[in-house]
Amino acid sequence: MNKRGIAILGSTGSIGVNTLRVVDAFRDDFTVVALAAGRNVRKLAEQCARYQPELVSVETEECAAELRAELARANVAAPPRLLHGEAGLVEVATHAGASCVVSATVGAVGFVPTLRALEAGKRVALANKETLVMAGELMTRAAEASGAELLPVDSEHNALHQCLRGERRAEVRRLVLTASGGPFRTKTHGEMERATVAEAMRHPTWEMGAKITIDSATLMNKGLEVVEARWLFGFEADQIDVLVHPESIVHSMIELVDGSVIAQLGVTDMRHAIQYALTYPERHPCQLPALDLTQMSALHFDAPDTERFPCLALAYRALRAGGTTPAALNAANETAVAAFLEERIRLTDIPRVIEHVLDGHESRPVTDLDAVLETDRAARLSASEEINALVSVIG
Amino acid sequence: MNKRGIAILGSTGSIGVNTLRVVDAFRDDFTVVALAAGRNVRKLAEQCARYQPELVSVETEECAAELRAELARANVAAPPRLLHGEAGLVEVATHAGASCVVSATVGAVGFVPTLRALEAGKRVALANKETLVMAGELMTRAAEASGAELLPVDSEHNALHQCLRGERRAEVRRLVLTASGGPFRTKTHGEMERATVAEAMRHPTWEMGAKITIDSATLMNKGLEVVEARWLFGFEADQIDVLVHPESIVHSMIELVDGSVIAQLGVTDMRHAIQYALTYPERHPCQLPALDLTQMSALHFDAPDTERFPCLALAYRALRAGGTTPAALNAANETAVAAFLEERIRLTDIPRVIEHVLDGHESRPVTDLDAVLETDRAARLSASEEINALVSVIG
Repeated sequence: MNKRGIAILGSTGSIGVNTLRVVDAFRDDFTVVALAAGRNVRKLAEQCARYQPELVSVETEECAAELRAELARANVAAPPRLLHGEAGLVEVATHAGASCVVSATVGAVGFVPTLRALEAGKRVALANKETLVMAGELMTRAAEASGAELLPVDSEHNALHQCLRGERRAEVRRLVLTASGGPFRTKTHGEMERATVAEAMRHPTWEMGAKITIDSATLMNKGLEVVEARWLFGFEADQIDVLVHPESIVHSMIELVDGSVIAQLGVTDMRHAIQYALTYPERHPCQLPALDLTQMSALHFDAPDTERFPCLALAYRALRAGGTTPAALNAANETAVAAFLEERIRLTDIPRVIEHVLDGHESRPVTDLDAVLETDRAARLSASEEINALVSVIG
Repeated sequence: MNKRGIAILGSTGSIGVNTLRVVDAFRDDFTVVALAAGRNVRKLAEQCARYQPELVSVETEECAAELRAELARANVAAPPRLLHGEAGLVEVATHAGASCVVSATVGAVGFVPTLRALEAGKRVALANKETLVMAGELMTRAAEASGAELLPVDSEHNALHQCLRGERRAEVRRLVLTASGGPFRTKTHGEMERATVAEAMRHPTWEMGAKITIDSATLMNKGLEVVEARWLFGFEADQIDVLVHPESIVHSMIELVDGSVIAQLGVTDMRHAIQYALTYPERHPCQLPALDLTQMSALHFDAPDTERFPCLALAYRALRAGGTTPAALNAANETAVAAFLEERIRLTDIPRVIEHVLDGHESRPVTDLDAVLETDRAARLSASEEINALVSVIG
């Protein structure tokens, strides 16, 4: 078979790095044609030397200059074409040699490039869940129009994709996303109120970036996943449930109309989901250690507590409101999480900020990109104002 | 849609009764055309009155006479045609009005009728696992030749069938059958040696007939299921594993070559698997309570202990030997279980009897029915001799 060309948006992040490890394992199947990253110039330079992509993009012009110097210093043969900013990201996402684009930037920055990749008919291996939360309707419409495939890379949706393989849509009663419950699963509201950034960053089962780790601590990550599932699989909010499963072994499940439940299980290594998205519909033999259930003490399942984790309820509220509301939810959450990471607000302030934004947001239909981007801007502004108000009170 | 005609071999047993409850729930989809039972004439008479099958068969001529009298007494309108013995069972299994035959007799008696149903191109919903253990090669060959479908009704294989729906055979690394572990899961060898029939009949999660409940206590049930899985799904012994799972919620699972595991979960109600086998490839909405994982304390998984449960290892030995050896295993087991239920031997004598029979058995290819039936006879004789020897020692 011809090698499949891969482009990666966010190549120096955890999904990006793991995608390259999957490529390492299947050098006969895949070749890296384009990479985009933010400001981690050193790591990107190493990736350029090793994978020799034809095109590379970074966040700023300064980073591009640094990278150019780094590559010259390292004497990299055949240095890539260098771009920067959103235009660069879009170029990477639509590179003619890429049949599969791994969309793994964090937050809203991946939105436009991912849309362009879908419009260009690329398979998109999607790790950037904000993309579907902001504009699931636009994304799925673009994919339908071009025939592009949208393959989820986060473990829960990847699990749902696997569970749904042999089933007819009309015979599926509901989707059940599992949630580890995060580091505060067994903590009181008071403990969460006093939580430091370091405590919130201690995820029990998965090692991930900062934003998604905080989202896991508030359960907003699961809320965003509920919205994402709605767009990936076409089910309504009432048909998407969340179950807390601290061991993160059952990655998600579906319930059929006849009462049968199909679950996907695996070790907590994101390379599995990445590999699945790259090789689908085939499954390639994987040398990683397989799941050994006899080594687990037990698997537990609990209903989520939306009193202590109001972010989950806020996500359902936004999904039910529809239109631009999930985009407002996402922007408010990104802004609030950034403020928490800067130690400006408390963990428990995050849902307050989001609720404030949702209360003030008037939902509009997602007719085009501008409607989404305008919502995103307005929600960030509203969130910042609320954060400043909270800070002045705490201050 | 036209109603699908159902014939049931073993209509008064637990699978038979539950099949009729499924028919009750879908009277627009299914109609009962023929029933066969053993000696439970009273229950069979009730079933005749309620479902008005066209044909009924019982074990003996005397039972047929009793049933005729019972039906006359109850004034059943349009009494069915009455047959008896193996010829009667075969007539029920090949009834022209039946498109689906539920094969749910206990032990070797269902063997020939099930083969005839497959030869006649009927869908066979198979609960009688001895059938495949005795002559999986003949059965699957007959099904292939006629185009008959073989749908497993026991929960484990039904689960595997569901897990395999969306997958390519070559991409499946192994099948994993779950086992409750039975009532002696946590008991010592000494306690098992002294076990009474009543203790062995106390199955922790499933309510079933006597033979299969004892098989669950010795783990021979799982051994027979390993052989059954080999024929139903075409995997070799090395690709079929067993995992003890005391809660019986995960009914079985498959591991793919990429390390992913797909599992089927459900409540322990055999109507689910029966319904699946009757409605496949469709899934019909089911009103039974769905699985609620939040109500479970936890799910556990352990490797089986073949020291305390040698029957499991004996089944693998028979499967690897191939040919007529599994038929010898099955006959020896049936004979030994009967002797245990009659309190002639101890529970721990069952594997001894089987081992004795396997040691003396010379495997032959399963060329035809006679090879199997001859093996069955010889193994029963050898088992009886060993049982008599054990009894005289204990005596």
